[in-house]
Amino acid sequence: MTIQPRNFAREDGVLRFETVGDLTLESGEVLPEVTLAYETWGELNHDASNAILVLHALTGDTHVSRGLVGDDADAKTRAYAETEGWWAGIVGAGAVIDTNKYFVVSPNILGGCNGSTGPASAAPSSIDPENKPWGSRFPQVTIRDTVRAEARLADALGIPSFSYVIGASLGGARSVEWAATFPDRVRGCAVIASASSATADTIAWGHMQNLAIRQDPHFAGGDYYDGVAPETGLALARRIAHTTYRSAAELDFRFGRDVQPGEQPLTSYNTGRGRYQVESYLDYQGEKLVKRFDANSYLAINEALLTHDVARGRGSLRQALEPTAHCHWLVAYVDSDRLFFPSDSHILASALPHPVEPQVIHSPSGHDGFLIETGQVERILRQALAEHSEREEENRGVPSQVAAAA
Amino acid sequence: MTIQPRNFAREDGVLRFETVGDLTLESGEVLPEVTLAYETWGELNHDASNAILVLHALTGDTHVSRGLVGDDADAKTRAYAETEGWWAGIVGAGAVIDTNKYFVVSPNILGGCNGSTGPASAAPSSIDPENKPWGSRFPQVTIRDTVRAEARLADALGIPSFSYVIGASLGGARSVEWAATFPDRVRGCAVIASASSATADTIAWGHMQNLAIRQDPHFAGGDYYDGVAPETGLALARRIAHTTYRSAAELDFRFGRDVQPGEQPLTSYNTGRGRYQVESYLDYQGEKLVKRFDANSYLAINEALLTHDVARGRGSLRQALEPTAHCHWLVAYVDSDRLFFPSDSHILASALPHPVEPQVIHSPSGHDGFLIETGQVERILRQALAEHSEREEENRGVPSQVAAAA
Repeated sequence: MTIQPRNFAREDGVLRFETVGDLTLESGEVLPEVTLAYETWGELNHDASNAILVLHALTGDTHVSRGLVGDDADAKTRAYAETEGWWAGIVGAGAVIDTNKYFVVSPNILGGCNGSTGPASAAPSSIDPENKPWGSRFPQVTIRDTVRAEARLADALGIPSFSYVIGASLGGARSVEWAATFPDRVRGCAVIASASSATADTIAWGHMQNLAIRQDPHFAGGDYYDGVAPETGLALARRIAHTTYRSAAELDFRFGRDVQPGEQPLTSYNTGRGRYQVESYLDYQGEKLVKRFDANSYLAINEALLTHDVARGRGSLRQALEPTAHCHWLVAYVDSDRLFFPSDSHILASALPHPVEPQVIHSPSGHDGFLIETGQVERILRQALAEHSEREEENRGVPSQVAAAA
Repeated sequence: MTIQPRNFAREDGVLRFETVGDLTLESGEVLPEVTLAYETWGELNHDASNAILVLHALTGDTHVSRGLVGDDADAKTRAYAETEGWWAGIVGAGAVIDTNKYFVVSPNILGGCNGSTGPASAAPSSIDPENKPWGSRFPQVTIRDTVRAEARLADALGIPSFSYVIGASLGGARSVEWAATFPDRVRGCAVIASASSATADTIAWGHMQNLAIRQDPHFAGGDYYDGVAPETGLALARRIAHTTYRSAAELDFRFGRDVQPGEQPLTSYNTGRGRYQVESYLDYQGEKLVKRFDANSYLAINEALLTHDVARGRGSLRQALEPTAHCHWLVAYVDSDRLFFPSDSHILASALPHPVEPQVIHSPSGHDGFLIETGQVERILRQALAEHSEREEENRGVPSQVAAAA
């Protein structure tokens, strides 16, 4: 494969768009004229060997870290670029994913609502002469589908293979699927607080969230873009999800049975009784999400998570991962995670061609520990990236000791 | 207190009703003309010392075990009595809660929909001249409120004190509240798979379930009795609850990623995609509940659980339990429980005037282990009841060794 690197003036943390063409999905349907939104940081080196792919979680987006724009950038672009990213401590100049060293690429997932083609996107004229939003017509996309779209983005950017593909939570589902689908293009793979497949428990929680949205009367089967958005349903879905993101111990420690200031829980139950603090906290989480996320995208991505199974059509999990023998693997879990359990990481790590010991992120906070325990994530990633670089240099015939001594 | 025992021909496992009068609630409101439904098994002995109170969980009812009716009982009463009870292996003739030995009383919780006064009950004429269902007008009831109503039932049945008060899950919240509210009337207390208070995590799950019901457009603020019941909301609430009743490991073991026969999950997500088995299983749990339970009662009882805090208004937990020094305590948890955690039982057990070691029900199934692991529950209860009987005999000045040798 001959890949021509894309030429663009370096502007970090700026939303870009790539049209990757028609995509034949796992379901057999064709999604026409697919666009992926993405951001980059740093520069691709001369042999295009320094690219790192960072894959966001369910309601994440492309803005992993602050950007850097030229003097001629407009105010909106500048404001966007300078907004704090969701993994600020991990990606940046001098951070463990050092944008002075690596070319970092962060694509928005297929079906998302942060620039990539999703249910809220205008349907192309071949589907709808009026170019109304896809809505209920948007087809099911799987984790494997988005990975295949992302591979086309890598083609366009001139990246034959990634030094490391890194994802946590649903992003980890994306990263392990990347390694199994394109073993020649993934030299290192980090799967953090995630799993090789969505288990029955994951499916159960996802199912309830999806129903919460669908049962909102404003959902209208998915075609609500001309009316009121199904915000109460989406907010309920978020409350369910958020509770699985946090450990019971953390909720108890932070909120206990405390009463929301100014409210009174001991009042009649059907006439607006006051709330406990933890109820108010979950309400707030729901309200925050509906302001920034499309309910159909939530469904599309959550449904994609339910389909996640790196072994589908590939035999056993071990067989599915067999082609990744050369890949440097990092598997890590949060010890208090009640969404993706430590056992999920052990299952993946022990099915690798060269089994690894999963790394532990110690946290009282549950699943969200991957976002909260930045210091530990940083240390684990630093060790993995250093070991990986060293091995790659050795394999190039430049022993790192010699290089260091020179 | 002089209590006159109720005279009724012995008919076990038959639904009876007791009017316990107006009840001033914790909120300060008065709930007029309260009725409690209840069932009994066995006979109260000459000194009224052999009564056991069994308290059901959130969606449980009074029918703990099969009944026994006379030849003249009508067909409907007979059919009801002969229906299998929800704790059949535990309560019955020859069972650990031996109805040949004990007089077992099982009341329906205040706010319920199985005979006790609840939101679906006709409001008395003082509230509504048309006697329409309470609906949105039904006041908040707490665990403490229902316990106080149940004490009046005990009065009516001529029970000065219970040999043992036994409850699991929300029933355990009722039993610990019984011991703290009426320490002179509770000689033994079993709190199984429960807690001394609803923690932030319990409140979080309850909050989502309540919202699922309230957000159903048919809920109509609670006044839906003339229209369609909020069944989709109640079914969603049940799915959330049921998932917390089962361990992730059990769901994964039973269902994994299996596809519901005849359905296809890899299809378009907004046009009726097929389900995974675990989704179908949860749908079934929801459908089953809506056939037998009123959404307003679910809310009322779930709200009562949220208020559960045996220490409310009584100082520390230790202080709240101080008056129960004479009580024989049994605290037990299911080791895989993710609704009421083992730590909840440890907190209760260590705050008792004479701290006890919690008993462990080993189960892969999660919270519902208290219903599933009948053998272990039976063994734990048998040991507690035997020890309790022995102590009571000793305290009466009839050392059990002497009694046994006689």
